[in-house]
Amino acid sequence: MAKLKVVIAGAGFGGLSAARALNSVDFEITIIDRTNHHLFQPLLYQVASAALSPGDIASPIRNILRNQENIIVIMSEILSFDRTNKRVVTSDGVFIYDILIIALGSRHSYFGNDEWEQFAPGLKTIKDAVRIRERILISFEKAEKCTSETERAKYMTFAIIGGGPTGVEMAGAISEIARKTLLKDFKIINPSDAKIILLEAGNRILPSFPQSLSEKAENDLRRMGVEVLLNTKVEKISKGQVHLKDEIIETDNIIWAAGNKAPSILKSLETETDNNGRVVVNSDCTLPDDNNVFVIGDSARFSDKHGHFLPGIAPVAIQQGNYTGKLLRKRSKGIAHSKFSYFDKGNLATIGRAKAVCEISRFKFSGLAAWAIWVFVHILYLINFRNRYKVLTEWIWFYISNRHGIRLITGLDKESK
Amino acid sequence: MAKLKVVIAGAGFGGLSAARALNSVDFEITIIDRTNHHLFQPLLYQVASAALSPGDIASPIRNILRNQENIIVIMSEILSFDRTNKRVVTSDGVFIYDILIIALGSRHSYFGNDEWEQFAPGLKTIKDAVRIRERILISFEKAEKCTSETERAKYMTFAIIGGGPTGVEMAGAISEIARKTLLKDFKIINPSDAKIILLEAGNRILPSFPQSLSEKAENDLRRMGVEVLLNTKVEKISKGQVHLKDEIIETDNIIWAAGNKAPSILKSLETETDNNGRVVVNSDCTLPDDNNVFVIGDSARFSDKHGHFLPGIAPVAIQQGNYTGKLLRKRSKGIAHSKFSYFDKGNLATIGRAKAVCEISRFKFSGLAAWAIWVFVHILYLINFRNRYKVLTEWIWFYISNRHGIRLITGLDKESK
Repeated sequence: MAKLKVVIAGAGFGGLSAARALNSVDFEITIIDRTNHHLFQPLLYQVASAALSPGDIASPIRNILRNQENIIVIMSEILSFDRTNKRVVTSDGVFIYDILIIALGSRHSYFGNDEWEQFAPGLKTIKDAVRIRERILISFEKAEKCTSETERAKYMTFAIIGGGPTGVEMAGAISEIARKTLLKDFKIINPSDAKIILLEAGNRILPSFPQSLSEKAENDLRRMGVEVLLNTKVEKISKGQVHLKDEIIETDNIIWAAGNKAPSILKSLETETDNNGRVVVNSDCTLPDDNNVFVIGDSARFSDKHGHFLPGIAPVAIQQGNYTGKLLRKRSKGIAHSKFSYFDKGNLATIGRAKAVCEISRFKFSGLAAWAIWVFVHILYLINFRNRYKVLTEWIWFYISNRHGIRLITGLDKESK
Repeated sequence: MAKLKVVIAGAGFGGLSAARALNSVDFEITIIDRTNHHLFQPLLYQVASAALSPGDIASPIRNILRNQENIIVIMSEILSFDRTNKRVVTSDGVFIYDILIIALGSRHSYFGNDEWEQFAPGLKTIKDAVRIRERILISFEKAEKCTSETERAKYMTFAIIGGGPTGVEMAGAISEIARKTLLKDFKIINPSDAKIILLEAGNRILPSFPQSLSEKAENDLRRMGVEVLLNTKVEKISKGQVHLKDEIIETDNIIWAAGNKAPSILKSLETETDNNGRVVVNSDCTLPDDNNVFVIGDSARFSDKHGHFLPGIAPVAIQQGNYTGKLLRKRSKGIAHSKFSYFDKGNLATIGRAKAVCEISRFKFSGLAAWAIWVFVHILYLINFRNRYKVLTEWIWFYISNRHGIRLITGLDKESK
């Protein structure tokens, strides 16, 4: 009998967990990703803010799965899903499946204003992170050599749009760069004059956290010199300008951290999606009309037993990947499986050195304790020992020296030259 | 009295040594570089071969010079030198000098065939190194998913042109990637089937070393599976093809390590240069007709007391930079200075893990002892403690695990997408 063909689309948290949960099962598994590496996205902002190297938070997919005999890794761009013929169409040809697991994550959403992207890059890939890093550093270089005060102010203004965890972390990190790391590096400008503005459309930052922690985080940011503008909607973004209702912010650095949507190729599944393009799935992560197609992680709209939709965060993707792998193991033995249920381990966001907020079931922490938990959890979940070792090394260095390491402008981002 | 204005063009080994030797002198110094970092070029091949991260071997110039009060760092592209008006023209305006120190290093030379560069990139900048790294890794990815044997052979063939230290180090490093690091990562191809060809026009590799060490290195490379072709001149390079006299090598990866020349903007000095564009200088590194302009390092043609030209290597640049700084200190006090004399500390090249060749005055080493010296010297000369710590950490990891770390394809090189 031919082996069951399983295709996993995407090697992020969801796809990789599914692959690992299928270790040594007698299937023929293919995992397809458009990059060659698994990226630990929760730390991507640290690459963007020059604290870590790309190599510290990414690991080759092949390397992670090297000892798993039943899987082939293919680096390729997925173009569409063809459910009629049970095929995944890629830039390197088609792959036939019996079972399809889709774990493609999410992309930035500019709420229908895709033209904003060129002026306000988001943070999803290593390329994005390096681009943002180089832009930030180049701004300070430009400020140092420019002669007009107006222009200098523009180079030293940083606008971060969106007050979720990514926005908060970026704002805090840029403030630390300016006020600590770069402080003594410049002779003409004073990097601590940098104006860092965090814009949030809602009435508080970190809306997924309890109110008290939102306030704590806001106070921490203000003390670090970040201007937090709440109830502030961005009307338009143009080159070097963020247009608000009654004001225009002139800045060379706009970072987008405001919205996500699922990738548009999910439309080729021809099934129900929500406003953000996420695929509506059953309680076992399958499509309503096809129990051989699973959608997990950020790409899926999963509604829990209370009717709440699960958030697009790593723990959900990991648990769903793991669940799907186990389900397929059971199914191959004819064993019944239960519904997916999400175990909420809590909520974490860091603001700066020794500053974080953390919610674990009924407990709320902030300050050093929350930061220690944050460090511990992130080191623990990094994909392999090498990365854990390297990131921990960097953080110890930073904690002691207060100075970030990787402040290179390499010109790899051609736009920034 | 106005302070003496010193402009240093380039923050490589030469420029940085000159800057440091002028620490706390009462001059107004400006150092101009087109990047924001000092690069430890001798280890650049380790970035190209995925062993180190860019951040491990580069350090922001501002950071290195942060405690030196008399110096301003400008990131800018130098366009020309205007000796008549004592100005350096850059993309950000002009800088007036009383004293000019030129330390611009060298570029690749394709011996008049500049069109070869697009097919056979060289290795001078971090951007070059990341580009080569991504090309190498993508070739293995392409080989894994390709169905034609001919094409697969092409993807798994690596041609390195030039048998100097860079060529030898790259060939050895690619062999280690294929035969050790990647060995178990692929399921379809066998990375150790990779064909690595080192092409040298002369009759031995490492021509600047004693004959016996050249032979040692050649034997080491052959044992590592590298084909060493001596007396082999490249007639032409086209896309995916290296044309020899009676043969064409089909390969997706051509790396150029064959020749250097000084940057063409040196022509604006309107002074004598040699065939490679290097500026002919006096025994105190000044121009024949202008003792306020110094040219040091790879950009200079300095002939020693025996009439030999000094090689384009880091120790020469460092010593000349140091010499120039000290000379200017003395000159400002009216003290006479002696000629520059080069102290030859020896010659080192590494071939692989625990394999190197080394010549120190009359002593010749090879194997583990030479490799240990190589590791020690390179760690010692890295620019700051942080980099030393990080590189040593990586090398210990590699020595123990035999596995390189930074194997990322990030798409930063747009050509390679």
